[in-house]
Parts: sequence; C-alpha cells; structure tokens
Amino acid sequence: MRVIDGGICAVRGVHAAGLKDDYMGLALIEGAGPCAGVFTRNKVVAAPVVLTRDNLENHKYVAGTIINSGNANAFTGEQGMADAREMARLAADKLGVQKSHIAVASTGVIGRFLDVGWIKDHLDEVYGALSADPQGCRNATKAIMTTDLIEKEVSVELECGVRIGGIAKGSGMIEPNMGTMLAFIYTDAILSADTLKECLVKANDSSFNMMVVDGDTSTNDMALLTATGASSIAPDVANFQRGLDYVLVELAKKIARDGEGATKLIEVQVNGASDLADARKVAKTIVRSPLVKSAIYGHDPNWGRVVAAAGYSGASLDQDKVSLKFSDGKNAVTLVDHGQVADTSANQQLKSIMESDTVIISVDLSLGEAFAVAWGCDLTYDYVRINAEYTT
Amino acid sequence: MRVIDGGICAVRGVHAAGLKDDYMGLALIEGAGPCAGVFTRNKVVAAPVVLTRDNLENHKYVAGTIINSGNANAFTGEQGMADAREMARLAADKLGVQKSHIAVASTGVIGRFLDVGWIKDHLDEVYGALSADPQGCRNATKAIMTTDLIEKEVSVELECGVRIGGIAKGSGMIEPNMGTMLAFIYTDAILSADTLKECLVKANDSSFNMMVVDGDTSTNDMALLTATGASSIAPDVANFQRGLDYVLVELAKKIARDGEGATKLIEVQVNGASDLADARKVAKTIVRSPLVKSAIYGHDPNWGRVVAAAGYSGASLDQDKVSLKFSDGKNAVTLVDHGQVADTSANQQLKSIMESDTVIISVDLSLGEAFAVAWGCDLTYDYVRINAEYTT
Repeated sequence: MRVIDGGICAVRGVHAAGLKDDYMGLALIEGAGPCAGVFTRNKVVAAPVVLTRDNLENHKYVAGTIINSGNANAFTGEQGMADAREMARLAADKLGVQKSHIAVASTGVIGRFLDVGWIKDHLDEVYGALSADPQGCRNATKAIMTTDLIEKEVSVELECGVRIGGIAKGSGMIEPNMGTMLAFIYTDAILSADTLKECLVKANDSSFNMMVVDGDTSTNDMALLTATGASSIAPDVANFQRGLDYVLVELAKKIARDGEGATKLIEVQVNGASDLADARKVAKTIVRSPLVKSAIYGHDPNWGRVVAAAGYSGASLDQDKVSLKFSDGKNAVTLVDHGQVADTSANQQLKSIMESDTVIISVDLSLGEAFAVAWGCDLTYDYVRINAEYTT
Repeated sequence: MRVIDGGICAVRGVHAAGLKDDYMGLALIEGAGPCAGVFTRNKVVAAPVVLTRDNLENHKYVAGTIINSGNANAFTGEQGMADAREMARLAADKLGVQKSHIAVASTGVIGRFLDVGWIKDHLDEVYGALSADPQGCRNATKAIMTTDLIEKEVSVELECGVRIGGIAKGSGMIEPNMGTMLAFIYTDAILSADTLKECLVKANDSSFNMMVVDGDTSTNDMALLTATGASSIAPDVANFQRGLDYVLVELAKKIARDGEGATKLIEVQVNGASDLADARKVAKTIVRSPLVKSAIYGHDPNWGRVVAAAGYSGASLDQDKVSLKFSDGKNAVTLVDHGQVADTSANQQLKSIMESDTVIISVDLSLGEAFAVAWGCDLTYDYVRINAEYTT
C-alpha cells in the first residue's frame, strides 16, 4: 500500500467539484456504484440523513452526492424533508440519474430552513466544474468545510492496484451550532454493497468512532463508502480492509487535529485491557476528559487526571497494575509503572514531549490482551471563543 | 422548614474548626452518631475513601471527621493507606474516641505522598479552636476549599425542631488535578444509620449526582451524613427527607455556580420524560455539553445545541414533540413548541435572560410524566486557564 495524491479524485470513476461563498458551500460528487453508509445515532436526525439512509436501505447504490455547508437542515420538520428531496432531484437531473440514487448531506446551523434557491442558483456552475483532477477533490473538500482550518483528504493505492480515497470535514461550524462530521470515501474496487458495509462498519469503529473533539454528537454525521468498480479489480477483502482502515484513521486524525481551537493532536493508546470494549472505553474517556485536554494544552504531563479518567471509564482496572507513558512518537517517558509513580519533575525529555504538536498517552492496564486507540485534541481558549460568540 | 445560619454548627452536638495556609488546609469536626456515606464510583479510589468506607461499613458510626486539602492522598499505594490511618489515629487521640470511629477525607493533588507531619503539627491548634459557633463551621469550610471561591454551607430547621446542616467543597483545585466534591452533613435528629443511608442515597441522587462541572469524576468524592441525636427528636422520615433534599440541592447549586471559571449557574429542568432514568439522562447530557456550556457563557440562546444534546443522551425522544424554554427564574421565553421553532431573533426578554447570572433551560419531551433537574455552569476562558496552568 502506498499513499497517493488526489483524494477521492485519485479513485477512477470519480469526478468532484465545489464552490463556497460567505453564505453557503456546495459540493457535487459524481461516482456510481454499490454504497454503504454509517449515520449519526443522535435521535434528533437531520432531514438529509433520513433521506440518504432510506435511499441506501432501499437501493444500496449511489450515483452522485450533493452536499451543502452553512445549514444543517436539521430540526426543520416536513419542510426540511421536502428541501432534502429537492436537493436530490436537482442533482439527479444534472447528472442524469435516478433521484433515489443521490446521497444528500448538510452541515451548519440547526433549526433554519434551507435556502434551496441558493443551491439551485449555484448548481450549474458546480456541475460544469466536475473534474477527475485533484483540484476537483480539493474544491469539494473546501466547499463542505465550515470553521475547519485544514482540508481533510487521504488516498492510497493497494498492491493489487485498487485505490481508496476519502474526504472529510469535522469539528468546525459556520455558526455556533454543531460540528458535523461528514466523510465521503470512494474506491474503484469491485465490491458489493454488503461487503462495503461490513468493511465500513469495521473501519468506522476504530477510526471516526474513536475520535472525540468535545463529546457532542451531531444530528448530521454521515460517512459513505462507494465502490465505482472502475479499476476492474476485485480485491482481497482483508487487504481492502487494511487500506480502508488506513484512510479512515488518517481522516479521523486530521479531524481531531483540526478540532475547534485545537493546537495539538492527542492520541491515547490503551493496552492490556480485559476486552476490546474496555480498551475503547478507557481510550475514549481519557481523550474526552476536559481536565486531560486542558492539561495537554498547558503542556502539563498531568498523569493523575489520566488515571482518574481511566478509573471512571467503567472499564475493569486495578490501580496497582496500571502503567502510563507520554510520548511524542519518537521518545517516550514512563510516569507510572505498575502503580509505582516515577519522579519526572526534572525530566527534560518529558518537557519536550509535552511541547510537541502530537502527544501520545499510552496506558497499559496489564489485565488482558485487548488494545484500542482514540484521537482527540486539546481544550483551548479558542474552543471557548469559537463556541461562545453570540450569533443567534 | 426555615433556613437558618450556622451551617453544620447550627446542628446541636457539632463542633468544628479549621485552618489553612498556602501549603495545605486542615479541618476537624466533632459530632458523634450513626452515620451514612456515599463515595466516588471511580475505580481509582483514594486511600481516605477506602478507609472511611470500611469504617462505615463496619460501624455505621462516626465520632469525628478529619479533612485535609492540598493533597488527595490518591494513587499513593500502601503508604497512602498508612497515612490515612495515621490521620484517623491522630484525630481519635485528640477527640478521645476510637480510631475506627473517625472519618478521613482528602482533596488536592493526586499521586504525591501526604505530609502527615504538617497535619500533626497543626492539629493541636485546630483541636483547640473547636467551636459550636458559626465561625467554627466557616473556618472548617474554608479549610477544605481548594480553588473554590465561595464557602458552601447550608442549614435548615424543620417544623419539628430538628436541624440539618451541611458544608461542601467542589470544583476547585489547589493544583491542577481533581476537583473533588466533599460534603459533610449533620443533623441533630435521632435516626438510625440505615435510615440515614436511605435518605442520603435518595437526596444524593437528585442533588450531587445531578450536578456536572466538567464531567470528570474524582477519585476522592465523599458525602457523609451523621445524626448526633442532640435534639432528642425522632422526626417523621418523610419530613426529614424533604429537609435533607433541600440542603443537598442548595449545596449542589452552590458547587455548580462556583465551578472552575464559571460565571453562571445553569439549571436544566426536564419534564415529560418516559421515565426517571430518561429524564435524568437528558438533563445531565444537556448540562454536560461543552457546546451548550460555551453558548451560555456567550449569552447565546443556542437551542439547537440543547435539542442535539437531548437527542444523543440515549433517552427516548420524538423531535416533533419537544418543547423548549429559556428562563432566568422570573421570565420565560419559548424557543421551540412541540417541534415548531419560534422566531426569537428580536426578543429583548430572551436577551436579558441570557445575561442573567442563572439560566434555566426547560425541556418538555411530552412523552410521559417523569421529570428531573440538573445543575452545571458555563464553560469559560477561565476554566481553560485554571486547568492549563503548568504546575507539575
């Protein structure tokens, strides 16, 4: 497997385009094939999520995807559903496909009716710009960003020649509402919708689902995986899974690092848990802890907060067996070894680790064999500023 | 029932004292009788919690309580247990009671050995200052504060003459570790330890357990309820429960309002839930949401974040039935009525509510009869500052 350029446009059979003004953004992706999706578990579900979930349940096939930023089309009742259907109809007409083969996604402010007129007015231009060039992907990625600062795209080519590419947005907001997570992943492999679903759920559980910016779950989260088949290759599924895992984990890390106000990526590795569920609980609880997140922001190797978070995670834990290291990916310093606290007060290496732009916290519970990794970001003044600004 | 002055010293049979320097604080409470406690559910449990929990299990009786601030005596292994036992022995010797009748509590930094010498050096002075005067209670309350800004004490007298008084600390830290919640409640009623336990668990579930500052659960949380019997009155238990509920709720609100960096108290009232568990889930999820907390800080009536938090709380919810109001306790403004969004963009009353120092969010799910209330505070720059300061 090697990393390649181009994002989703590296995938044969995919064309993308997007535009953005101060008011809204619009992206269009042409790429047809079996498709699987995972969606927000929030019980307040945005209209585009309802529509796309239904389309996928009925057809397991997507020919095109239309996405707007600037308005989440959530908590908008019947009018919201009609607006989402209208977005699908507009895209289907342009692409010359069935409207039930269109995926619709939205991100932005909750509880305001969508300006479908704006979308209609700008769709011609976006359609005309559809391109398999990397710039097409880049423009689509930009169009779905809200307060994201960094474009999030990843693409790889497997040994067998199959390509997988994905774009995502996350953790930003055009107005202080929800930091929706959206991801669109394409492959040119020949794979059935059912296999795609299995692979997507598996990859999602150890990537997007292990990423926490602030613990708030959006009404609009959506990740779609579509296989165009344009490579004419039916890959070994285990190989494909490895490639897909890589793409989703890289996108998840990009989203975490670009979390609202973030200055650092935090990676929490948990080893020696009794089972996978426990490992994930511990990793996510630590990466979600506001006390841990603010300590990392302050370059403070405050391991007491880390073990306390592990302790209230609900996972099995014996404090006399816990070990803990901080690392920057190159050097690691042990803070606790099987419950014994190390004196690190004058450790210069630890100081430099805490100043790194990636802080890796490794916890070993020494209870079993299970491990998990979670990603998050520090809690900063800017997180508060971004989310406290009065705009309603 | 009427509110009276004096905190725990309003309760007959209780003497208290405390002192504090820049390094540590020490409080001593003399007050003997049947006692019940509730303790942290964190699996990393501080030594004083282990000791006091064991003492209460074995004896259901407390004659005196010794509390230090400045060091949590948590994650300190065998040495920590020995230190907690030594604190109990020192207090027992002074008060002339059995050491197994001493409750021990600590709050402060995790993972450092306790300076028992300091406690020994200062205990004579604290013992000599023991007093039933309100100032005794005030000094004990101050001694257990860390970065708390406000002393937290409440006392009431029931119609039957029984008094209940409590002190608490919360949400502050002497060093950036845990914001331990400690509460010591006394009554001069004649009540058995078993009845006290029932009443305490019930009151705790709808007060301290419904309070969120940042979602981190300490290794040292403890609330103790002791009945000195000094009023010679055996009260009606339902009446006693009402008084106890009042005291614990008022302490919880004081802790929430004095949360780290907080500028406002947030109260979330949930009505119409399917059952009590759902009502509590919704209330706590809303009051824990960093997005809601930062919106309140920014005076932003950002109801989209409130319904989204309700949606991911795990409780049953139908978005077409949800109603939502914001209030300052005097005036209320409806933002959503059975799923219909009100236009409040020019509402001056709403603006003034958001500027109030108490913001009440009322959610009606219109699904059943259950209700719950939770308390929290806004998320501010100061929360980040306090917890990001490098001190390790």
